[in-house]
This record gives sequence, structure tokens and C-alpha cells, in this order.
Amino acid sequence: MVAPLITLTTDFGEGSLYVAEMKGVILSLQPEARIIDITHSIPPQDIRQGALALEQATPQFPPGSIHVAVVDPGVGTDRKIAYACIDGRHYISPDNGLCGLLVRRHPPSSLIALTNRRYWREPVSNTFHGRDIMAPAAAHLCLGAPPADLGEPLAELTRLDWPDVRIEPARVTGEICAIDSFGNLISNIEDHLASSLGPADRLEIRCCGRVIRGLSRTYGDASLGQCIALYGSNHRLEIAIVGGGARQALSASVGDVVEVAAAPHEGRRP
Amino acid sequence: MVAPLITLTTDFGEGSLYVAEMKGVILSLQPEARIIDITHSIPPQDIRQGALALEQATPQFPPGSIHVAVVDPGVGTDRKIAYACIDGRHYISPDNGLCGLLVRRHPPSSLIALTNRRYWREPVSNTFHGRDIMAPAAAHLCLGAPPADLGEPLAELTRLDWPDVRIEPARVTGEICAIDSFGNLISNIEDHLASSLGPADRLEIRCCGRVIRGLSRTYGDASLGQCIALYGSNHRLEIAIVGGGARQALSASVGDVVEVAAAPHEGRRP
Amino acid sequence: MVAPLITLTTDFGEGSLYVAEMKGVILSLQPEARIIDITHSIPPQDIRQGALALEQATPQFPPGSIHVAVVDPGVGTDRKIAYACIDGRHYISPDNGLCGLLVRRHPPSSLIALTNRRYWREPVSNTFHGRDIMAPAAAHLCLGAPPADLGEPLAELTRLDWPDVRIEPARVTGEICAIDSFGNLISNIEDHLASSLGPADRLEIRCCGRVIRGLSRTYGDASLGQCIALYGSNHRLEIAIVGGGARQALSASVGDVVEVAAAPHEGRRP
Repeated sequence: MVAPLITLTTDFGEGSLYVAEMKGVILSLQPEARIIDITHSIPPQDIRQGALALEQATPQFPPGSIHVAVVDPGVGTDRKIAYACIDGRHYISPDNGLCGLLVRRHPPSSLIALTNRRYWREPVSNTFHGRDIMAPAAAHLCLGAPPADLGEPLAELTRLDWPDVRIEPARVTGEICAIDSFGNLISNIEDHLASSLGPADRLEIRCCGRVIRGLSRTYGDASLGQCIALYGSNHRLEIAIVGGGARQALSASVGDVVEVAAAPHEGRRP
Repeated sequence: MVAPLITLTTDFGEGSLYVAEMKGVILSLQPEARIIDITHSIPPQDIRQGALALEQATPQFPPGSIHVAVVDPGVGTDRKIAYACIDGRHYISPDNGLCGLLVRRHPPSSLIALTNRRYWREPVSNTFHGRDIMAPAAAHLCLGAPPADLGEPLAELTRLDWPDVRIEPARVTGEICAIDSFGNLISNIEDHLASSLGPADRLEIRCCGRVIRGLSRTYGDASLGQCIALYGSNHRLEIAIVGGGARQALSASVGDVVEVAAAPHEGRRP
Repeated sequence: MVAPLITLTTDFGEGSLYVAEMKGVILSLQPEARIIDITHSIPPQDIRQGALALEQATPQFPPGSIHVAVVDPGVGTDRKIAYACIDGRHYISPDNGLCGLLVRRHPPSSLIALTNRRYWREPVSNTFHGRDIMAPAAAHLCLGAPPADLGEPLAELTRLDWPDVRIEPARVTGEICAIDSFGNLISNIEDHLASSLGPADRLEIRCCGRVIRGLSRTYGDASLGQCIALYGSNHRLEIAIVGGGARQALSASVGDVVEVAAAPHEGRRP
């Protein structure tokens, strides 16, 4: 039987030597570990983007996988490091909200603060707990250590500061919460919220000064250069430019408002 | 015996969460899969660059490897998804020309349209068939599923729109077809075409206003800053600046003309 | 028992097809090889940054690992390709100083020039020995070939051109030797050199026009936007902006001077 997978999600940057150091530490303890990079392109210290990455990617991995996430502006301070078991998967991260979107869907079945120095790499630096505490913890879990041995029970996780969607009778207002490498603008409005307003062809979407009438089914259904709205592969409303990048075309940024409204009935117009 | 390798080639960007989702889907179906990233830096929706990547990298992998390529501007439309067996290797990609350079060298021995929903991840999104159709197909092949089970026979692959090289008695005219991270300009002129014009030291290469006399053997054979032409490691004529980047120095782009001519015989000069 | 790890460190760029070619060559010879990317983001032809990467990352990997490093401006010329056994780990690289920082700590126990063509991929290109000589050598070592079979004994490695730290009675002067993806400025001044000048709160650090009084313990110990100095996770003095990037804020570059001085005793001030 193969050892459980270990995944890494960090804000260290693709090609970062800090990532390589973590892999070396894991493989020195558990030579059979199989390590998968989820991403190292989280913007520096951006806990929200880290939380989104964990929510989008980690549920695709097999139950039992060990997910390590390091977006850690508070490294070396008194912030805790947490182990959480969420939906049958193991998460190790600073306790700063990184698992905040995951726990909205599945409350954690186990929470531990990583306080047991026996599982740390010594000496522990003040600036790199990913290497000195989180990587060894993941390796030990992969070797079969019981999570409870990693430290002491933790009452609850720190909550994530996450923008709420405002829901009104004929309008849902959210914001751009992520932008992918194609420049697609991904909102925090989930498909069921938008579709509750009416049929897809009667919705009116506003974002960065553009008004889009109706939802498209996929990118290739509209003509090159057209600005469209659609439900993306992770069930969120997104705005795209066919064959181009909406980020640049709309000068859009994370945090910009996205509004979905039910179009007024044609018949009611004077 | 180890499971066959699965490689991934996409235009999702390094560090893209879409890549991580595909890996999770593969590993959930086939936990022993070994996944290698070929590249995720294909420019968005650039099928030619995707075709070049497959041609350059995949023949280096062992026969039996499973190569998944996702550059898919037509996702969710009626374009097909193809399985092709080419030179003993398995390819899964949208049928849009991505395998077009490979099949020039080796006609496919088997072609299947991926229509068997039993091998798909449900529900299938309209915008991410890489995750929902291609990744599961690769995992099932890796588990030993016969390719014919993935769908129905496909008569032929869509051809790649690829720039031809013009061959004249004393001249070969092509274009820059790729630029690597060093800024080296890689042309679509293969070494045998250029060398048929005469000995390497008698060739004259023109590109972006520069005239280069004779071919160099390697980068370090010329002095720093010199603009040289040579045959690269994949048998194509390339233009380079020693210790620098030709892309910037020559303001070069993919598509710029590259011309190779036999230099006039010295003796004939008046 | 698992096969030894093979790691790759290059200046090819993340997502480079040259990296994929090397992986294909390795896996074609040794299908059970497990390949870890250390980084492919070494600036082109920057041997010093390559040496730093090897020094920082490779000692974290298990003894017996095979580390391949390709930063190779002299490819195809008469520079040698070296195998070195350093601190129980195997290194394959052009003999151009890449292992220069490693051998300062641990003299190599074995040195071989890779001259045995039996272990090369044929035909050998003039421009890509990473693929045609170094990757096959790594695969053969991974399969159990004795290092001595790779070629002939090599008397010594080419030295690395490395900036020295100037040590005076109350002052240590070095320079920025690396900048990480957070924009932290990492100097060539090791912690023991700086701490020999006096207690951490009495040190005065000068860099790019800034004067920093005292060392911080970690990033989160100072307020947002503050410019601090601290010992990083690899025991070198570094300069950082809390929650920001020092590279931009200080317009800093590799090579800029970093000076540490013992602050004058308060009591002596007039």
C-alpha cells in the first residue's frame, strides 16, 4: 500500500528554495513520501487566497491526504500552528484562517495545536516554521503517527476574514475573490445564489463598469473579445473575455464589486 | 512493476490551481500514478506552442507513458477530445491540432474520441474538461483500461495550422516558432534543411535586421554579447546572443522571419 | 527499498521544456527514479545563485541523494563536467564553481570528470549537456553504477568566485548575496560573525541608505512597514520590510553593501 500523499500550498513563489527545503525535510524523515505541489503562487501573506486554494484543490485529493499550507505572516509570534481533520483529510497550517473556507462546508472532526517539540526539527528557527514544525509534522503523520501525538487539543480554529455576499430580493452583490492565470475574474457568488434570481438568460451582471446580459454556458459559446459571465468549474460566477484576459480588459482587481440582478420583465417596460 | 507515467502539458500557468485539481482527480482514481509536469507555461490558448512542447518533450519519456495536453480554447463546444497512440506513447488532448507536429513524424496507430461517459468525472463542467474528462481518462489508462473503451473510433485528427518553410535553390525561409527562457530564438528550420545549402561556415542567416555569417557550434564558442546562429539541441536553427537574450536584443517575436542563404563564393566576387 | 532521490537545480526557468526533457531521459533509463525540483529559477548563467541554491537546499535531503545542477554558460566548450561526493551526497554539475559553497563546509570525498561516453545519451548535442550527459549520469547512479565508472579522477573543483566578508574590530562588511520572493535581502554575513560584535540590540545595520538599530527576532515582532534586520532561517543576516518587500522599498540589488557595526556605548556619548 502506498503512503498517503502530502501536498504543499505556500506563498513562497514558484521555484522558491524554501519549498525545496521543506521537501528535503519531509523526505529525510519519510523517504517514501509522495509530495504534490498545489501552488506556491499565493500572493505573499494573502491568507484569503491561501484559503481559496485549499478549498478549490484539496477536496480533489484522496481522503487521508496530508495537506500542508504555509501562508504565515505571524511566523515566530504567539500564533498557533494547527492540525485539523476536515472531511477525512489532514491539514497542517498556521492557525490564521487558512482553513476557514474548508470548515464552512465541513466542521473539523479533530483539532490539535502543534506543541509537541518531539516532532519538530531542531533547532527551530523563528522565521521558518514551515520547514521546522509543519514539514516534520506532515512526515510523521505520513509515517503513521497519531495526530493527537502532535500536541494538545485546540478548541477552535481562528476564523477567516471573508467578504460576505449581500442578498436582496432581486439582487446579489459580491466581489471578485480571485483572478486566474487566464485573467478570468472569479467572484464569491456561488451558482445557486445567482440562479435563485431567475433563469440564466434573464440575469444582468455588472462588474467594473460592464453590463453583461445573460449567462454563457462556456467560453467558446461567444465570439472572440466578448465579455461574458458564466459559472466556472468551481460553481462560482465568473467574468471572462473570450480568447483574452478580463483582468486587463476591465482593469479589474480582487475586491471589485460584482452584482447580479434579475433583469426587469420586458412586458413591464413602458 | 511501476505504473506508467502520466505527464501534463497545459496553458494554465505555473502554480495554477487547475493543475492541482487535475492531479487530485488522477490520484483519487489511481493512487499509484506518478505525474510529471512537462510545462504549464504554454501561452494561453496557443495551440502551436502546445504542439511544439509535446514534440520536444514527450519523445524523451518511456514508451507507454500517458501524455495529457490541455490547451483548449473550444472547451465545452462541439470540438472532440481525442486519444491517440503515437510512436508507442498515449496522448489525450482536445482534438484541435495539439498532436499535429507529433503525427508528422509518426502516424497514429490508434485514434479514439473520448465519448464514454463511464470514464468521466460527474458532473462534467462546461469549462474544465481537463479535470472532468481528460484527467480521469489518463487515470483509467494508467490503471490498465484499454484505450478502445474510452469511446468511439475517430477517423483522423484535426490538422495543426503550422507555418511552412519555403525552400528555394540557395535559400531557406522560415520563422521564429518559439523563444526559450534564455531568450534564444528557435526557428522552424531543421538542421538538414539549412545544411543542404552548404557548409556551416558559408551560410548567411538573417533575422530581425541582423546578418550572421556562419554557424557556431555552441554558445561558449563566441564572445559575450555576440549574435550567433547555431543548431539547438532539438535540431532546429536558432539565433542567440552569447551570455544574453536575443529576444530583447533583437526585439524578436514568434513569427518573425528567419532566412538562411548560401553565401556567395568568395572567388566570384568582383 | 526505494531508489535514491534525484534533484534538479537549473537556470532554465520554471516550466522550461529543457527540464522536462531531462526528466524524460532520467525516467527512460531508470523508471523508478523519483525526481524533485529544487528550483529552475536561477537567473540565467548566474553561477553564484546556483551555488547558493545548492548550499541552502541540498543538505536538507537524505544522504545518498543525487543532486544535478545545470547552470552552464560554458556548455560545449572544454569546461569539464564533474561528479563530486560531498557530505554523503552526490553532485553532478559543470565544473564551474557551482559546488563552491558546499565544499567550503565539507571537502569532497570523491571527484570524477564525466568522460565515459558509455553513460552518455547519443548523439550528444553541443548545447545541452544537462540532457545528454548529466541526466543519464544521474540515472545510472540511481541504478547503482559506481561513481568511478562515470569517468576519470579529477584533482580538484574549479573555485567559486564569491564575495568575501570584511571583518574589522567593531564592524563587519558584506553584501546582499540573494533576494527571496518576499523581497527579503539576504546577506553573506553569517550570524556568528555579526553576533561576535556584541548583543543583538546593540548592533547597527546599514544597507541601501537605511540604518537599522538592533536585530529583530522574527518578522511579526515589528510593526507593518518597518525595516528590520534579523537572522534568517539559514543563519545569514537579512534585511526585511514587515509585510512588504525590501527589494522594492530599498531599491536593493544583489551586490549592494551590508554593514554591521557595534553601536557606540551610550555612556560614551558627550
